[in-house]
Amino acid sequence: MRDPFMRALGIEVEALSPEEARLAVVVGADHLNLHGTAHGGLLYALADAAFALLSNQTAKAVALSTRIDYFRPVRPGERVEARAEVVHRGRRTASYRVRLAVGDRPVGQFVGTVFHLEAS
Amino acid sequence: MRDPFMRALGIEVEALSPEEARLAVVVGADHLNLHGTAHGGLLYALADAAFALLSNQTAKAVALSTRIDYFRPVRPGERVEARAEVVHRGRRTASYRVRLAVGDRPVGQFVGTVFHLEAS
Amino acid sequence: MRDPFMRALGIEVEALSPEEARLAVVVGADHLNLHGTAHGGLLYALADAAFALLSNQTAKAVALSTRIDYFRPVRPGERVEARAEVVHRGRRTASYRVRLAVGDRPVGQFVGTVFHLEAS
Amino acid sequence: MRDPFMRALGIEVEALSPEEARLAVVVGADHLNLHGTAHGGLLYALADAAFALLSNQTAKAVALSTRIDYFRPVRPGERVEARAEVVHRGRRTASYRVRLAVGDRPVGQFVGTVFHLEAS
Repeated sequence: MRDPFMRALGIEVEALSPEEARLAVVVGADHLNLHGTAHGGLLYALADAAFALLSNQTAKAVALSTRIDYFRPVRPGERVEARAEVVHRGRRTASYRVRLAVGDRPVGQFVGTVFHLEAS
Repeated sequence: MRDPFMRALGIEVEALSPEEARLAVVVGADHLNLHGTAHGGLLYALADAAFALLSNQTAKAVALSTRIDYFRPVRPGERVEARAEVVHRGRRTASYRVRLAVGDRPVGQFVGTVFHLEAS
Repeated sequence: MRDPFMRALGIEVEALSPEEARLAVVVGADHLNLHGTAHGGLLYALADAAFALLSNQTAKAVALSTRIDYFRPVRPGERVEARAEVVHRGRRTASYRVRLAVGDRPVGQFVGTVFHLEAS
Repeated sequence: MRDPFMRALGIEVEALSPEEARLAVVVGADHLNLHGTAHGGLLYALADAAFALLSNQTAKAVALSTRIDYFRPVRPGERVEARAEVVHRGRRTASYRVRLAVGDRPVGQFVGTVFHLEAS
């Protein structure tokens, strides 16, 4: 279930169903930006991996456009969890939301839109 | 100039000035998704790194919100370049655009907004 | 509570609290695009009005960046409802989500980020 | 060329080709928010109208997802111009950018993605 990029970053899959994906990563030394906190690209990669797994559960899906909002910095050693949910599934396109949190503290929100190849 | 996350991903800085940042990465085996093409998170990380370097040239900047649109898949061995430019710099916030390309073929576009700490 | 733009478009406020804003509009002849369905700008204006009312409940807030995803067309005579909720409220910035629906059928999703003037 | 929503808002088309759309509106009393400046929904509607006209020049296009960033307030009586350009046109999807300005002062940036019906 994990692709090479997820493995390289240490992203783990905790739960996956057609309605939800839950992934997590512990912020390590290789994940940091110049301020010494988690790189935006790491938080994005975590959210994007959850989005990709969930959106491919019911169709072959290609990501078109995503957005991420960052709420606060994440520190080394903290464990970030991404929870992806379905916002809308249409025939040709679908939309998902992913919430990022450290424990019960929200650290970001991601939304993404996919295009379905071979819509039935 | 490179932070730990950029180094771990092999992202290189080609040019950096207050008006432009140009970064690049060659897609390797660790950068792939399940389809065998560059992970969205890698393309994002490249764009985000260019955005972060450029936005911190003239102020201490914190990323608030970004968007990336994906135009087509990028294959292993291809070299992706990100060119970040200033769209608008205000006192408290600023906006940037990053174009992603393989050679002269566009593969994505990123836009991002930052908040300036200690606005002068 | 309604500003001139909301009045000109016929947008009504159904509920407003620090945690939620609920607004609605009935799609009329002046709201249509060339396909004869509700203009994207109308659906956006409805969502944005809900976002503006909610984000100004607890601070003086200025919109920085928003995104809207469209799920399906809305027809003349249909009543669209926007439900805005708080995603995250920080000291200097905050994020909101607005769901758009016709009855219980989702027609779009909006997310928005504000900057707080005079953060306490 | 103008749809009913554009006419109701007073949006004018200045130029339209397969590569560019240029539209404008003068901010009037009906376009204001509670702060007495142009409503975000008006600026969005102007950008969205330029995006819709341009994206339908070469295909039947349906808007999927858009983003707008606001740089500064626009006052009553000011004339806002939107310049839409092509970022990428693919077979099934396409991306556009719209810059908003009052004279040569940028006031916002919009990006949008469409889906092509009946891709050839």
